[in-house]
Amino acid sequence: MKILVINCGSSSLKYQLINMETEDVMAKGLVERIGIEGSRIKHETIGKEKKTIETPMQDHKRALELVMESLTNEEYGAIKSLDEIDAVGHRVVHGGEDFAQSVVIDEKVLKGIEDNVEIAPLHNPPNIMGIKACQRLLPNVKQVAVFDTAFHQTMPEESYIYALPYEYYEKYKIRRFGFHGTSHRYITNRAAEMLGKDVNEVNLITCHLGNGSSICAVKNGKSIDTSMGFTPLEGLAMGTRCGDLDPAILPFIMDKENLSTEEINTLINKKSGVLGISGVSSDFRDIEEARDQGNKRAKLALDIFEKRVRGYVGSYMTELDHVDAIVFTAGVGENSIEMRESICAGLKSIGIKLDPERNNVRGEDKLISSDDSSIKVFVIPTNEELMIARDTKELV
Amino acid sequence: MKILVINCGSSSLKYQLINMETEDVMAKGLVERIGIEGSRIKHETIGKEKKTIETPMQDHKRALELVMESLTNEEYGAIKSLDEIDAVGHRVVHGGEDFAQSVVIDEKVLKGIEDNVEIAPLHNPPNIMGIKACQRLLPNVKQVAVFDTAFHQTMPEESYIYALPYEYYEKYKIRRFGFHGTSHRYITNRAAEMLGKDVNEVNLITCHLGNGSSICAVKNGKSIDTSMGFTPLEGLAMGTRCGDLDPAILPFIMDKENLSTEEINTLINKKSGVLGISGVSSDFRDIEEARDQGNKRAKLALDIFEKRVRGYVGSYMTELDHVDAIVFTAGVGENSIEMRESICAGLKSIGIKLDPERNNVRGEDKLISSDDSSIKVFVIPTNEELMIARDTKELV
Repeated sequence: MKILVINCGSSSLKYQLINMETEDVMAKGLVERIGIEGSRIKHETIGKEKKTIETPMQDHKRALELVMESLTNEEYGAIKSLDEIDAVGHRVVHGGEDFAQSVVIDEKVLKGIEDNVEIAPLHNPPNIMGIKACQRLLPNVKQVAVFDTAFHQTMPEESYIYALPYEYYEKYKIRRFGFHGTSHRYITNRAAEMLGKDVNEVNLITCHLGNGSSICAVKNGKSIDTSMGFTPLEGLAMGTRCGDLDPAILPFIMDKENLSTEEINTLINKKSGVLGISGVSSDFRDIEEARDQGNKRAKLALDIFEKRVRGYVGSYMTELDHVDAIVFTAGVGENSIEMRESICAGLKSIGIKLDPERNNVRGEDKLISSDDSSIKVFVIPTNEELMIARDTKELV
Repeated sequence: MKILVINCGSSSLKYQLINMETEDVMAKGLVERIGIEGSRIKHETIGKEKKTIETPMQDHKRALELVMESLTNEEYGAIKSLDEIDAVGHRVVHGGEDFAQSVVIDEKVLKGIEDNVEIAPLHNPPNIMGIKACQRLLPNVKQVAVFDTAFHQTMPEESYIYALPYEYYEKYKIRRFGFHGTSHRYITNRAAEMLGKDVNEVNLITCHLGNGSSICAVKNGKSIDTSMGFTPLEGLAMGTRCGDLDPAILPFIMDKENLSTEEINTLINKKSGVLGISGVSSDFRDIEEARDQGNKRAKLALDIFEKRVRGYVGSYMTELDHVDAIVFTAGVGENSIEMRESICAGLKSIGIKLDPERNNVRGEDKLISSDDSSIKVFVIPTNEELMIARDTKELV
């Protein structure tokens, strides 16, 4: 069984073709600048040379046509015919309260995703475009939607209700949804395997640390709290997102700088985070380099980032009777040896201890805590595409 | 030595006359509705009958004249002449970055308090009115300013810098300041006494839980982190304040409901918190009663309140090498036996255990944890007025 995994952004599209017998990636690629001058597709069939084609693509349908052409290309493709694609799995950002798990897409599901555009105006529309384009290009192939929010639908009320007038929850669905759910779920399953425990029995704190970052408290395999909220802004300091903030700062800045709601949204989503603090970059590698060269604000940005991670870990410890493991994943979590070391050094007070040799690892599944650590610490590279493919396989 | 302690709000004024030899309150009172129809003063000299006088008071100066008259009244007063007042201590809300401790008020200090009006537009102006009125009424008496923010000026950068563009800190002083500092400091001193330790050696988590609530991480007697931020809005869910929130919710609501910055400020400061969730009241006693009668949203409001307290306790545990004690204070913290029980029941995972008999206490200094609790838990009634009087005594 071969499954195509699609992840559509507003002007981009990522894809992977996965062979489900082996769970190996057969081909993968990225389409950029859809609808903008300079559109291009970067395609790679594993074992063959990479291919970049620059050609106008006015919309996601045209982009997907090129994906299909690349996949079946005689020279650099992975399959002979589109008939070999057994199903398509789509990453969908926002399932709202309508989707607590992955589903086969039909008219009702598509309507449900459209209903949630109001609370995910940036994210759901490109997902819908991708689904509709695939439906036209592969009319006989089943499509599955895998939601970024679904894993967190098990959160109890006290985790997801904000201290706002309750009517805003009823009227506009303003509540904590949480994101990165597919990643936190993948990590949870993998950590259970590594712990040799049933997934329904593991308690974890999973730290997805990348350009966007979130932490999740997992109790008996289920999300009971997470740091992202109504939008992917809340919680940790991120590449360009401010995370937690005194909310009263927003009207203060809006008044001082005469900003519209759109402008303040841009400020807190695109110009803040570790970029805003450091003034250096939104990329943690650049900031670590600047810090190592003595840049104080780069150091401050990293200190703030690490402090918040520790704060959430401590906070979630109080929600869990016991914690089997803390897991680091995603770009920064998988690759920054120094960041993990620094975060965990500040968790000594609660008994957490890394083994420096074990921690000397990038991007592979590994126990990195010392044998006398109060809680095990793992690195587990996330694999959202594989999780989407597995869900799709199971549903079709 | 007799010290008059003054706490001016926009239309109210609280005062206490304290005999510093014994630290006993000689007289105290409250002026309400200053500048509004129906102004009144409620005065009580300890040991004498309480007195309420309703009379027009157009401003804080007139209010203070009546305070002086009441204090020296032959029938219900506490002193024979104003000459007996040796000094006046003023509560001042916002000292910004200019005041890390209490100071004798002179022209330069007054200017400093005025400079901070920009970031405390609701709080500093009445404080300034109170100081100026006292200067006129008691021209030969030294006046001292005790700041709500001062105790938190020891916070390190990573606690007070937000993940916003750094220029907003430089340009507008947008940073975490923290409030309730006089209370957290009083509690810190008292807890050190009860622990039999030098105050510079105690590590505490102090929970000031009232209509306004904040938590403070105290390391070696100094504040290193606190839950209130740039304004007293951030952190816990409070009577009517929302506390922590996905900041992106603000522009979302402003757009949906067409609200101005002033209106959104009113919403998050006056209509949210446990009032907003429960729809019942901002008073925790009313909400507890409603919950006990089966009101689900009242229960939810309390669950959210308690969860956030636990979250901050867990978060601050990671910032402290060890914790000598967790302390509950202020209206709710001192008086709600059930709330303390419920908060601590959820902290079992980190080894905290209350003794139900010891916890059966309201408003008195007491150890309430069991002997096998991992961390001691105290109730300590706060006394900001006494703290202000002590600072004043020391400075004059």
